[in-house]
Amino acid sequence: MSQIERDTRQDIVDTAERFFREIGYQKTTVADIAKSLRMSPANVYRFFDSKKAINEAVLDRYKREQEEALLAIAEQDRPAPDRLREMLAASFRLNAARFAGHARMQEMVCAAMDESWDAIIAHIERFDALLRRVVADGIARGEFRPIDPAHATGCVRTGMIRFMHPLLITQCECMPGPGAEEMIDFIVGALEAGPARD
Amino acid sequence: MSQIERDTRQDIVDTAERFFREIGYQKTTVADIAKSLRMSPANVYRFFDSKKAINEAVLDRYKREQEEALLAIAEQDRPAPDRLREMLAASFRLNAARFAGHARMQEMVCAAMDESWDAIIAHIERFDALLRRVVADGIARGEFRPIDPAHATGCVRTGMIRFMHPLLITQCECMPGPGAEEMIDFIVGALEAGPARD
Repeated sequence: MSQIERDTRQDIVDTAERFFREIGYQKTTVADIAKSLRMSPANVYRFFDSKKAINEAVLDRYKREQEEALLAIAEQDRPAPDRLREMLAASFRLNAARFAGHARMQEMVCAAMDESWDAIIAHIERFDALLRRVVADGIARGEFRPIDPAHATGCVRTGMIRFMHPLLITQCECMPGPGAEEMIDFIVGALEAGPARD
Repeated sequence: MSQIERDTRQDIVDTAERFFREIGYQKTTVADIAKSLRMSPANVYRFFDSKKAINEAVLDRYKREQEEALLAIAEQDRPAPDRLREMLAASFRLNAARFAGHARMQEMVCAAMDESWDAIIAHIERFDALLRRVVADGIARGEFRPIDPAHATGCVRTGMIRFMHPLLITQCECMPGPGAEEMIDFIVGALEAGPARD
């Protein structure tokens, strides 16, 4: 892809994101995006074969940003429990800033859940890989108890879903229960704790 | 309320539940329910002032059944960790049987989330009260570590939301991660474990 093509692709994703945020995913058409960029719909279709594919590119950019932030924490020279706590807190902060209370943004996520499940699973797998690296490190260093890193990572991610899933972040705001920091302490504590008492 | 009135109220709830299951909450009208019972809509409105109120009664019945099942487990003479595990497993089984893969049932739940948030919060509070009783019992008996029972209960319920929330039970079926039993072991293990290693 040439630089001009990369720039055009970027422009399409930027414009689509603005439309999705402002008028919503469902109401936005590829023709709207093309017209705003003074190009033909056919030219948009040279880069993306559907509105679904454009939505995936918008969400993929969010997810890459999140993954870069988590990788930077994972690579720090600090105890694994501290890094894991901070990675979970950063994921919550990023998702909350992006999605909490933004009904239009949630519409994008719902569309992706209906149409782009494979892209969501791929993000979850990359997210798990980042967590698992720190979990495995903590086990090797004796900071976490000796459990299977892949299993522990799945439990950590599943236990934190109320603070990660874009729809639950908003839906659960008025629900009784722990805040994000308290939940992170509980979940990371499950890995740090010594053997059961009996 | 007389016995005849109680029976009529029950008939309305039964009939509404059948309509909601078969044609969906949104498409069902109070007139449909009345006609099926050979009564006037005005008579239905003597018992319920809206379709929303009928939906709350249907969901309330489900919730009461679940709460009775959990209470029976809570009252057993067994170690608290065993009771807590079984209560969480029973909640998952009941919700999965009722909601997993039933799009119509999920429509009822979504409507309640939009329209009847107070009823949902009330159910969560009763659910928490049942769990908290067993958590507090386990702490008193030294089977759980000494943490605040209300806080611990909120963390247990929040950590299990992927297996409790009617919408997530279906949405997460194809997601990588632990099964319900494995997640229960992880979460209850967080209460059983001894102090952190350092």
